[in-house]
Amino acid sequence: MENELIRTRLQALRALMAEEKIDYYMIPTADFHHSEYVSDHFKVREYFCNFSGSNGTLLVWRDGAGLWTDGRYFIQAEKELEGTGVTLYRMQEEGVPTIEDFLRTHMPEGGCLGFDGRTVPTKQGKKYESIFQEKQVRFAYEKDLAETLWTDRPAFPAGRMYVIPEDVAGRTVSEKLADVRAKVREKPEQTGGAKADAFLLTKLDDIMWLLNLRGCDVECNPVAMSYFYLDADRAVLFIQKEAIAGDSVVPGSERLKLKLNYGCGDHLQKCGIEIREYGEIVDFLKRLPAGLKVMIDDRYCSYTLYKVLQMRHAGDNVIPAHNPTEALKAVKNPVELANMERIFLKDSVALTRFIYWLKTHIGKTEITEVSAADKLEQFRREIPEFIDLSFPTIAGYRANAAMMHYEATPEKHAVLKPEGMLLVDSGGQYMGGTTDVTRTIVLGPVSDEEKYHYTLVLQGMLQLTNARWLHGCSGRNLDILARKPLWEIGLDYKCGTGHGVGYILNVHEGPQSMRWRFAADGVEAVLEDGMDITNEPGVYIEGSHGIRIENVMVAKKDTKNEYGQFMHFDTLTWVPVDMAAVDLQILPGESVEQLIAYQKTVFEKISPYLNEEERGWLLRETTV
Amino acid sequence: MENELIRTRLQALRALMAEEKIDYYMIPTADFHHSEYVSDHFKVREYFCNFSGSNGTLLVWRDGAGLWTDGRYFIQAEKELEGTGVTLYRMQEEGVPTIEDFLRTHMPEGGCLGFDGRTVPTKQGKKYESIFQEKQVRFAYEKDLAETLWTDRPAFPAGRMYVIPEDVAGRTVSEKLADVRAKVREKPEQTGGAKADAFLLTKLDDIMWLLNLRGCDVECNPVAMSYFYLDADRAVLFIQKEAIAGDSVVPGSERLKLKLNYGCGDHLQKCGIEIREYGEIVDFLKRLPAGLKVMIDDRYCSYTLYKVLQMRHAGDNVIPAHNPTEALKAVKNPVELANMERIFLKDSVALTRFIYWLKTHIGKTEITEVSAADKLEQFRREIPEFIDLSFPTIAGYRANAAMMHYEATPEKHAVLKPEGMLLVDSGGQYMGGTTDVTRTIVLGPVSDEEKYHYTLVLQGMLQLTNARWLHGCSGRNLDILARKPLWEIGLDYKCGTGHGVGYILNVHEGPQSMRWRFAADGVEAVLEDGMDITNEPGVYIEGSHGIRIENVMVAKKDTKNEYGQFMHFDTLTWVPVDMAAVDLQILPGESVEQLIAYQKTVFEKISPYLNEEERGWLLRETTV
Repeated sequence: MENELIRTRLQALRALMAEEKIDYYMIPTADFHHSEYVSDHFKVREYFCNFSGSNGTLLVWRDGAGLWTDGRYFIQAEKELEGTGVTLYRMQEEGVPTIEDFLRTHMPEGGCLGFDGRTVPTKQGKKYESIFQEKQVRFAYEKDLAETLWTDRPAFPAGRMYVIPEDVAGRTVSEKLADVRAKVREKPEQTGGAKADAFLLTKLDDIMWLLNLRGCDVECNPVAMSYFYLDADRAVLFIQKEAIAGDSVVPGSERLKLKLNYGCGDHLQKCGIEIREYGEIVDFLKRLPAGLKVMIDDRYCSYTLYKVLQMRHAGDNVIPAHNPTEALKAVKNPVELANMERIFLKDSVALTRFIYWLKTHIGKTEITEVSAADKLEQFRREIPEFIDLSFPTIAGYRANAAMMHYEATPEKHAVLKPEGMLLVDSGGQYMGGTTDVTRTIVLGPVSDEEKYHYTLVLQGMLQLTNARWLHGCSGRNLDILARKPLWEIGLDYKCGTGHGVGYILNVHEGPQSMRWRFAADGVEAVLEDGMDITNEPGVYIEGSHGIRIENVMVAKKDTKNEYGQFMHFDTLTWVPVDMAAVDLQILPGESVEQLIAYQKTVFEKISPYLNEEERGWLLRETTV
Repeated sequence: MENELIRTRLQALRALMAEEKIDYYMIPTADFHHSEYVSDHFKVREYFCNFSGSNGTLLVWRDGAGLWTDGRYFIQAEKELEGTGVTLYRMQEEGVPTIEDFLRTHMPEGGCLGFDGRTVPTKQGKKYESIFQEKQVRFAYEKDLAETLWTDRPAFPAGRMYVIPEDVAGRTVSEKLADVRAKVREKPEQTGGAKADAFLLTKLDDIMWLLNLRGCDVECNPVAMSYFYLDADRAVLFIQKEAIAGDSVVPGSERLKLKLNYGCGDHLQKCGIEIREYGEIVDFLKRLPAGLKVMIDDRYCSYTLYKVLQMRHAGDNVIPAHNPTEALKAVKNPVELANMERIFLKDSVALTRFIYWLKTHIGKTEITEVSAADKLEQFRREIPEFIDLSFPTIAGYRANAAMMHYEATPEKHAVLKPEGMLLVDSGGQYMGGTTDVTRTIVLGPVSDEEKYHYTLVLQGMLQLTNARWLHGCSGRNLDILARKPLWEIGLDYKCGTGHGVGYILNVHEGPQSMRWRFAADGVEAVLEDGMDITNEPGVYIEGSHGIRIENVMVAKKDTKNEYGQFMHFDTLTWVPVDMAAVDLQILPGESVEQLIAYQKTVFEKISPYLNEEERGWLLRETTV
């Protein structure tokens, strides 16, 4: 069956392309800041092809269109593209060209590639430049063709911001600005570029961190659409007026009994930050002195802004570097760490209480994947500091848990039974930290294989938790500790073992990560004292079961001696391991000891916040 | 006391420098091929400053001179430099400038830096170019000032080569040439350079491997001074006439009953290789067509040859790449692997017999570090395929073993007693493989601390031996398996865990390595099926004891499934672990099982080659 709606939209797009003399028009999935989640306003690709997955690029030409997406979405894309006339290009399958290769082959000499340059990172734009140099292809990157075509487009996100008080942030804005200014004056180590005079920051969570602000313009990420410019004398925030209108109202501030009697505007003024309208960024950059060298992070800065900066001057006046804010933000300060410890404990109590509720209600009340997630959210909402979820809860029952990106919906979800396991990956945004925790919960009888796999995942998780290493190691050195028990029997999980976690910010944060594969761009952050990271090995058996156990840890200094600075992890997450899924027979002695220690601490830390019944259960649950 | 000899030599050098208008003259420790060991002819630095260590650079100027060396040699250098007027610059000590920084500070505007460009790698030369660009410093790199000054200089090494028969080499020269030609035509992946038309190979072991030849021009490395040029049509070897004179006489060929009735010249002719005199390389390169793009490895190709190539043409005609021979040579072919298995077994028998001899003679005959090493060499010499040692044997008794680069000499060595431990690190060159093995041998009572450390080293060695991983891992991912037991108690060894081993070639071979630190030049070779690597964790307690256990292993393919290609190691070295130093109480169950399996295999493989007495001992020795 033809999808007339999409076909009509594509025809309108093609007509506009012809008018603009564009041969190929490319629509990626991104906002202007390359945020992890994209708000409805930016779902242009979905508007033109009906595919709703989180990753994909649409390419449209005179007599055809193609969608490139990855393995997670092949089945979904096939279904959603039906009748649209859009061809599915299965990324990384043999014989399937990349979008670059496709364009290389089909783009005519002197042709034109169109795209909204604000949705393409500089790095990618430069790559296209080098690909098309020989063919003298023109880029039409200054127009978003959807602007005139998509008439009922959702509004540009423009929520209100709030201030993070200093006793929560741990450092003042001026301290942070001084740190960043010092870094900007250094030669960027990763790119080997020249020294910069100024710094353009486009990454939203970095801007929020730097200015002790939070917003609500991206789902689950407490950020506001903004740009930030810094040089030796000036600090300028480009922000929508809606974001700074009125008082700074912290979500849940009534519960918190927290009232700031000044607005975001006052805060910014106090910090000496100039405020400009969000849309003025382009004109502002155009008017910067031609020779002024401006540092940008070409992984996040848009191609449009890069071109604006670059066109000021014939020579090199754009310095590529990693945002200096990234490494500063990743190392949590003592105040942040103290708050996180407190918040993670409360979050652990909520999840522990949920587990007890689930285990005592399963088979008695109807519980679904969706209602279980809702119940867990209720427990979290009881915490005064709760702001929001840090990502949509993943609650996957049995085989559903084997799909790493499973999302139960009101329309399609499983009903839980008193058998098998439920994987729950969830977290919250709190005034005092962002949590991320996974437990796989036994609801009734489980198979020997499930126990076997659970035990191996647990063993890997404990091995990494108890790692001790010399400063200088990155996640690439340590990752094998978590994977070893699985690799030994020919199993693996097709993802990293862990990621950094923001502080009242994005649940996925760099530069630290726990993964073994060599990254082409060579980002490999040394684990520094104060960096937090998740520890989440898993087993995913298609059509059968999925297991993941996830804690958040903080890298800390340990002994220092003639061999160097030793390091270890402190754990932040204290939720019981499900002993019903542990086969102690196959767990090595060292791991058993580590398990006993973990469960014992869980009981000590969590039990004071439980009622008598819950406490009795937790004591049994944490006894190895 | 003044060292008049050195002072006179330095004065003569300074006079010549003045004549040549050289402000600073730099003498590194290197031959023209950046070989690991340097023959006497190339000991120019020692001639001019008396320092005899294996690493150091001498810098001479009008009224001074400085020697830069690393921590291993501070004490020795201080002593040897006494009275020479040469200042010692302790590398990596706080406040000590690098030689680059020193030159940056002191070199006058428009000054002249002199050095023998043949002894400086291209990479370093280019680095100096960028350092001195602003100051417009001239390089006088085309003269070796020692040439006229050092009158009794030892001759340039010029030994005779021999052919490796095809049933030993496993692949013919034409097969190898075809492989290399294919690689040269690819865009070099590590450097991102352009495609090359031709390839200049200057690394001696790579040339030997490629042409199935071996020589004797570098101590312990069976290589001959040579250069090799390859393009689509031609293959040219630049070699001294002495190397190819007469028949190809394999060392020990009488024992081997091996007689090749053709010389190296015949072999090369048969393979279609043109032969030119070693010294003709410069003229040859000068006459290459100007636009011809030549691939070189700037880590090994000398600055002199690079400049010759570069000066042919205004544009980029030198393509930096890693020698494509490196990765090809590192993966041992099935014939090589079969020979290695056989040779490593014989070598293991020799070392096992030596251990028995040592344990039964200690306290009865006088044995020193030197005589023990000699005795071990005798056992090795009984093997028909024996050619030479693969490196000078390290035999360190008690505290001497804590010095990683200890070398006992006839003048200075320890006498062994029936107490403590002797560390023996040794290996042989055989017609069929190169070995490298370390055992720390208990000679009598050992302390609890020694046993503790030995057991932890053993545990790490066994963990790495039994690693299972997904293809794509490098040594950086696995290294922690060997270090974990030591890191857990705050110990470490200040070196890599392992290195590749040549095949009848250099005992240290890349690109594979087992180390955790991030290398600035980003060389991180994936462990491929057929790559061999050593596994040698250790503990070194200054003034007390040193422990190292070292086996050679080969990476092999294991199961392949939906997660990817799993890999494991096969062990080549079968010499008993000394149970007298193992504390089974602290060894985890998994490690005990691994130890039992290793010792059992040692007995099965080695005992058939022992006499009854030795066999009885080995049975007891390998019983856990």
